[in-house]
Amino acid sequence: MNNKIEVFDSTLRDGAQAEGISFSVEDKIKIVKALDALGISYIEAGNPSSNPKDLEFFTHMKKEKIKHAKLTAFGSTRRANVTVKEDSNVQSLLDADTPAVAIFGKSWDFHVTDIIKTTLEENLAMIQDTIAFLKEKGKEVIFDAEHFFDGYKANPTYAMAALEAAVKGGADWLALCETNGGAFPDEIYKITKEVVERFPVKVGIHCHNDGGMAVANSIMAVEAGATQVQGTYIGFGERCGNVNLSTVIANLQLKRGKHCIHEDQMTNLTSTARLVAEVSNVAMNEREPYIGNSAFAHKGGMHIDGVNKASKSFEHIDPRKVGNERRVLMSEVSGKSTVLSKIQKINPNIKKNSPETQKLIDRLKELEHEGYQFEGAESTFDLVIRKHLGKYKPFFELINYKIIGENQPGGENIASALVKINVEGKVEMTVAEGVGPVHALDKALRKALETFYPQLKEVHLTDYKVRVLDTTIATASKVRVLIESTDGYNLWTTVGVSSDIIEASWIALVDSIEYKLIKDIEDKIRAYI
Amino acid sequence: MNNKIEVFDSTLRDGAQAEGISFSVEDKIKIVKALDALGISYIEAGNPSSNPKDLEFFTHMKKEKIKHAKLTAFGSTRRANVTVKEDSNVQSLLDADTPAVAIFGKSWDFHVTDIIKTTLEENLAMIQDTIAFLKEKGKEVIFDAEHFFDGYKANPTYAMAALEAAVKGGADWLALCETNGGAFPDEIYKITKEVVERFPVKVGIHCHNDGGMAVANSIMAVEAGATQVQGTYIGFGERCGNVNLSTVIANLQLKRGKHCIHEDQMTNLTSTARLVAEVSNVAMNEREPYIGNSAFAHKGGMHIDGVNKASKSFEHIDPRKVGNERRVLMSEVSGKSTVLSKIQKINPNIKKNSPETQKLIDRLKELEHEGYQFEGAESTFDLVIRKHLGKYKPFFELINYKIIGENQPGGENIASALVKINVEGKVEMTVAEGVGPVHALDKALRKALETFYPQLKEVHLTDYKVRVLDTTIATASKVRVLIESTDGYNLWTTVGVSSDIIEASWIALVDSIEYKLIKDIEDKIRAYI
Repeated sequence: MNNKIEVFDSTLRDGAQAEGISFSVEDKIKIVKALDALGISYIEAGNPSSNPKDLEFFTHMKKEKIKHAKLTAFGSTRRANVTVKEDSNVQSLLDADTPAVAIFGKSWDFHVTDIIKTTLEENLAMIQDTIAFLKEKGKEVIFDAEHFFDGYKANPTYAMAALEAAVKGGADWLALCETNGGAFPDEIYKITKEVVERFPVKVGIHCHNDGGMAVANSIMAVEAGATQVQGTYIGFGERCGNVNLSTVIANLQLKRGKHCIHEDQMTNLTSTARLVAEVSNVAMNEREPYIGNSAFAHKGGMHIDGVNKASKSFEHIDPRKVGNERRVLMSEVSGKSTVLSKIQKINPNIKKNSPETQKLIDRLKELEHEGYQFEGAESTFDLVIRKHLGKYKPFFELINYKIIGENQPGGENIASALVKINVEGKVEMTVAEGVGPVHALDKALRKALETFYPQLKEVHLTDYKVRVLDTTIATASKVRVLIESTDGYNLWTTVGVSSDIIEASWIALVDSIEYKLIKDIEDKIRAYI
Repeated sequence: MNNKIEVFDSTLRDGAQAEGISFSVEDKIKIVKALDALGISYIEAGNPSSNPKDLEFFTHMKKEKIKHAKLTAFGSTRRANVTVKEDSNVQSLLDADTPAVAIFGKSWDFHVTDIIKTTLEENLAMIQDTIAFLKEKGKEVIFDAEHFFDGYKANPTYAMAALEAAVKGGADWLALCETNGGAFPDEIYKITKEVVERFPVKVGIHCHNDGGMAVANSIMAVEAGATQVQGTYIGFGERCGNVNLSTVIANLQLKRGKHCIHEDQMTNLTSTARLVAEVSNVAMNEREPYIGNSAFAHKGGMHIDGVNKASKSFEHIDPRKVGNERRVLMSEVSGKSTVLSKIQKINPNIKKNSPETQKLIDRLKELEHEGYQFEGAESTFDLVIRKHLGKYKPFFELINYKIIGENQPGGENIASALVKINVEGKVEMTVAEGVGPVHALDKALRKALETFYPQLKEVHLTDYKVRVLDTTIATASKVRVLIESTDGYNLWTTVGVSSDIIEASWIALVDSIEYKLIKDIEDKIRAYI
């Protein structure tokens, strides 16, 4: 294929250098499998000489099957004034036993003289020797020309000589690294084009986002003839991060006629991003292009009106192409029509000018003022509407709950919760223990209710999030708790706000249970009709 | 000045259309003042016809002094088939009483016929009439040509006719809007250049980030001759957001010789971003270029070694230029030298090869495995080192603590904490109430300790953050609690991890108090020497 772009993912190497990221061997294996399934061409998975965990990982990987990607080990050119064979770092690259190896070397003269403190000649020899040695051992070799663009701007002759040395060593790829991340797309285009025209070797691009232009820089390099794009799948890496590959893939494949991954895999872009974020234990930036939860979320009234008439009016692509979806947000700027569409799901007879509509909008604003956000908690919003319309009957009455926590050094640390409820005149009191007060409360409430509503046995929580709303008053601040629940078929999210984290959790827990019970009744009614 | 770029901020209008954003009138006033102090040229602060809160805000602003910026009201061209004078929306723009008005109109033929459903001719009249009317009233008028680039690609003749109508109406600015956010920098450059060459009117650019290229697109428009850049200060807006102006200002002013704000204000870029985020109640994306907390944070061993030798080796600019700072992160990939530098602050006699160094690195890895992160909690890390080196003596011994929470509907909701400690043989037991269990525990512990350490009276918490670490087991997950404390002079952060949020908070609270007490002793010793 003439328009093929090889995607080179470094989530497990450059990504591991991001603030807050720390991978276990198991995490790495999960991410390799996900990226391989998506059809990424190269997976740079670590530096076997810098880190014992990385070596353990590569040893493990010898037993794993990879369908598509080439696993790649990352390392440096040999040290100055030793032979390649004597260099233990280069040796450990061989021990990693991967089909491809990425070798970084210096192409900015200042780095040679002032950082690694060797001569300009020796640095060229280090590049050529190391690559030649690895080629002899049968490796595919990617030469990462570190700081290539800064180097070119400072001393173009030397920067080109570094590439020349790599070509003489037999490198398969010249990957031009915009290491400090501050370059502009017009520079990247011009310099990349010069390299592409000069050397008979494939060219790659490796951008960082310190100027906020890593995506554009990578795309402009491709326009100039680069056929490999290095980055990290959701963009985290040293400092401001690497280029976000999920964005690059979507841009190139949906809009520039390039082929990055198999067409059938495009709809997995979003779910793969979620998985990588989850395994990496980072909160996704939800405004991330294509894959973010907000990427196709509409809030302005005219935007909502527009997309309802034609998707392309306010969406640059159909979100389904990348496995994402449109969301219409609730808020004071979203206008009556959004609130109305939610109301009409529950009572189709209510109109835009019905007094209930305005009253509900007022109630919504009141709750937002208290700290509620319904954008991520549609089930609580559903209950707010029902309560407002009189389409709600409580399933139980709380008499009280008590929390007891006790901690002594060395002793067991257990929280207990006591819950007393009334269901149609029958009082039930239960107690349960948990690893913390919220866990105990969750268990005690379910225990009390399962006697009356056995279907609650199927329900369990899949996510629990806490947001401190006003950090200026510290431990006395309000908190917002979001709870995501499932019964194995459906997933729903509820929210509670209070100064007391236990009470905020309680509110969200009760909503979660009530939502399930209401849905069950409605399903039964529908089945009966 | 020939190289002047007018920065046009829409945080309070397009930014308010972002998911999770809701401004009060007070919030808006705070943000206007911050942006004005920074030297932003235009502040688009709302749509007076769409939202009563915005009208209240504009009414209030008549009494406020703005030093530098032009306050701008935003609205639409008149509706189809009415005169401008009859249009209440246009009237409310006048009521807002701002020196500048931004008027959006359609320039994509499809939007005219399929979304607002009028004729192509009437739309041109709507643009020209509305602008002419506002010019008569003495306003500076910015014409926002909505969907201009998509419109140009679909029907260049019509898109240009829309601009022509605005010029005939007397518009001061033609702002080219890349409303759907999916365009590429090469297209933006080419099309903007054509507009700049064709019309004798100043040109602006308004980009969204749906393709992850809003910064590059805005810069390329400036290269093509645009002299106004519209965006939001930290980038939030509808869907993936608007272009991040803090990045655009830094890129243009530090690297492209453009003048956006006063040179002296450049060092306020970072603090202004923090303020905007704080008032907007959004978590900053810490990887944001220039202004993010991670923007100059180094983790890889070779990077840390490099910046210690010369800043430019791994930093595209000196972070102080934008009021940010370099950070060196603790982690398993940061190498011995980072850990060593922290150890040597406490005991300068310990060397790289001392057995203590390796043991401490091992302990660090163990704690990271448990869920600790020291990157944001240097004070806890300081205590870990002290404990490890035997440079630590506990200030009190915990005997136990108990938490009692009780809740009944309608009743008061109070948490109590009981704390029993031993200080050099003297047992003290205290009880305190709080709005939640952590607040109660904090108060009870301080009450117990203040008898022995009266200096703790000066200490209070300034921030309290909760992060759920493993969301797959929901309420039984581990949580990490970060506490930031101050005594009025210093600020320090500590961390605790546990499955029980109360215990995690306790660990961080105890560290906060111990760190304060140790620092006080050291200060006294230093004063004595």
